[in-house]
Amino acid sequence: MRPSARHHVRRVKERARYETAAVHAVLDAGFLAHVGFSVDGQPFVIPMLYARDGDDILLHGSIASRLMRSLAEGIAACVSVTHVDGLVLARSHFHHSANYRSAVCFGTAKVVDDADEKVAALARFVDAILPGRAAESRAADRNELAATLLLRFTIEDASAKGREGGPRDDPADTGLPVWAGVVPLQLRSAAPIPAEDCALPPPPSVQRLTATNGDAA
Amino acid sequence: MRPSARHHVRRVKERARYETAAVHAVLDAGFLAHVGFSVDGQPFVIPMLYARDGDDILLHGSIASRLMRSLAEGIAACVSVTHVDGLVLARSHFHHSANYRSAVCFGTAKVVDDADEKVAALARFVDAILPGRAAESRAADRNELAATLLLRFTIEDASAKGREGGPRDDPADTGLPVWAGVVPLQLRSAAPIPAEDCALPPPPSVQRLTATNGDAA
Repeated sequence: MRPSARHHVRRVKERARYETAAVHAVLDAGFLAHVGFSVDGQPFVIPMLYARDGDDILLHGSIASRLMRSLAEGIAACVSVTHVDGLVLARSHFHHSANYRSAVCFGTAKVVDDADEKVAALARFVDAILPGRAAESRAADRNELAATLLLRFTIEDASAKGREGGPRDDPADTGLPVWAGVVPLQLRSAAPIPAEDCALPPPPSVQRLTATNGDAA
Repeated sequence: MRPSARHHVRRVKERARYETAAVHAVLDAGFLAHVGFSVDGQPFVIPMLYARDGDDILLHGSIASRLMRSLAEGIAACVSVTHVDGLVLARSHFHHSANYRSAVCFGTAKVVDDADEKVAALARFVDAILPGRAAESRAADRNELAATLLLRFTIEDASAKGREGGPRDDPADTGLPVWAGVVPLQLRSAAPIPAEDCALPPPPSVQRLTATNGDAA
């Protein structure tokens, strides 16, 4: 039976919704993006801190940065975020791989000038690095806002990809005397290092991180 | 005193040597790059496994990949590698940051067709993921080589950047009742998970990793 056009549309929408949720999940799990764009035919891929805001990605940098100003002109750009989850060790070189989750987002950026929106965005960057941290620290003042170039990158198209699970060896290789499996990897925190001029105890945001994410000290 | 031309050249060379060493150090500490290039005016930033070979970066993918074939045409590209080393938590939102090491490499890729070079390159990818692992597992055979598109990206220009150390708060903020400091981050391994059809003990490469890098289990 041939699916009706309406059914097809529904499936496409569901697929799009699923893809959006998958992209957001990858973005929300990190704070470092690799941002790509071309200037005079030369591609650049620059690491930048980011925070998701709905279907947008907030980026920021110094107003003195030539690359940030190029990006701010609304040229075509690509924002990619990747989390490495493990080493996939197969019996053969060919089937070695990595487990990962990634989002590749296409769109354009525009400058945000509104002061309230900039203050809120800077708080979002702080909470993207460490949830709850924004409320513990001082919000941006007028001079700091003036020195910050805030960009709102609107995601026009995006895809999430990933790999999970064990190695997928050729059946002919499974008898080889070679260990196969996965070594999970995770970005983990070590014991916090207070600033030299700080005698306060670590705040709740840091305590939550080290409690849930492991203290490597 | 005006430095002689020769002295100037020596300084430039030393600077270049220092920069090259710094770029190589960042590349050698990882295995995941973000590769940027434009196709029909649209920038792409794709996560790829890599391995350094001298002043080149080896990349690989499926010969079925449209993007890999575009890259293989020798278009301008940018290969970036970033390691996150810590969260920098300042008294103000504005001075929050991340400690990191990054390399941004500009150049072009060309296809490697030589079978021996491809076999050696696949071993390099495996050892980039986990040192010593290539010798423990089966090298690529003729069919696997045929299915692999190997690219040699020659670094024509590169720069290393990074941030380390504690927050750099405004002097006026140091009296605020806000904790400031760094939470170190590191990509750490957890206990290896053998493949379902593998009853062997973890090999030396895995044992070395979990011994030096921490067992998060």
